[in-house]
Amino acid sequence: MKHPRSCCPVACTLDLIGDKWTLLIVRDLLLGRAHFREFSASPERIATNILTDRLTRLVEAELVEKFRSPEQPGRDAYRLTEKGTTLGPVVQSIKKWGLEHIKGTSARMKPK
Amino acid sequence: MKHPRSCCPVACTLDLIGDKWTLLIVRDLLLGRAHFREFSASPERIATNILTDRLTRLVEAELVEKFRSPEQPGRDAYRLTEKGTTLGPVVQSIKKWGLEHIKGTSARMKPK
Repeated sequence: MKHPRSCCPVACTLDLIGDKWTLLIVRDLLLGRAHFREFSASPERIATNILTDRLTRLVEAELVEKFRSPEQPGRDAYRLTEKGTTLGPVVQSIKKWGLEHIKGTSARMKPK
Repeated sequence: MKHPRSCCPVACTLDLIGDKWTLLIVRDLLLGRAHFREFSASPERIATNILTDRLTRLVEAELVEKFRSPEQPGRDAYRLTEKGTTLGPVVQSIKKWGLEHIKGTSARMKPK
């Protein structure tokens, strides 16, 4: 990170993941989704320009890596790097909070 | 929440706290800071219009409550509600991730 706002680990982490979409892509990757079309199809209906931007940032931050899709020749696919996988507990803590404190939420999303 | 993007607890929680600033205010509140001026003085230098907006949203979401400052008569102060305090583990998981994965971060911020 070139110009961190401070040396606070919360601030620096939010510089990477502090928005409404990034952790939803990480959620999808943790669930085994790998293709642009799969992220687009998630119920929140992320706009394709936002999805492209967030995937690029995640790759730049070495949290996600691109690879050639084995299922769809000629297409890119995405997966979490080892570092990216360590965001699992952050996503889990947010999921737990939502389930406990926001009515109407449910953990129905299933791994691919 | 009137129009949640989905019933996913991660998405719904990010609708409340998914930005670069909200959890920094929660961090400050967890550290015992209570006054507008104290939040403004944090090293990230939040702009006053963003601070006002985020405090309003936090109060609307019943995560924060306003009270009359005992130290500064006539001024408002802010504190986490019981519900707001439950964001502690979310902030902690983000802090832990930052300390482990972002060079140059340090947990030097001390309670007031």
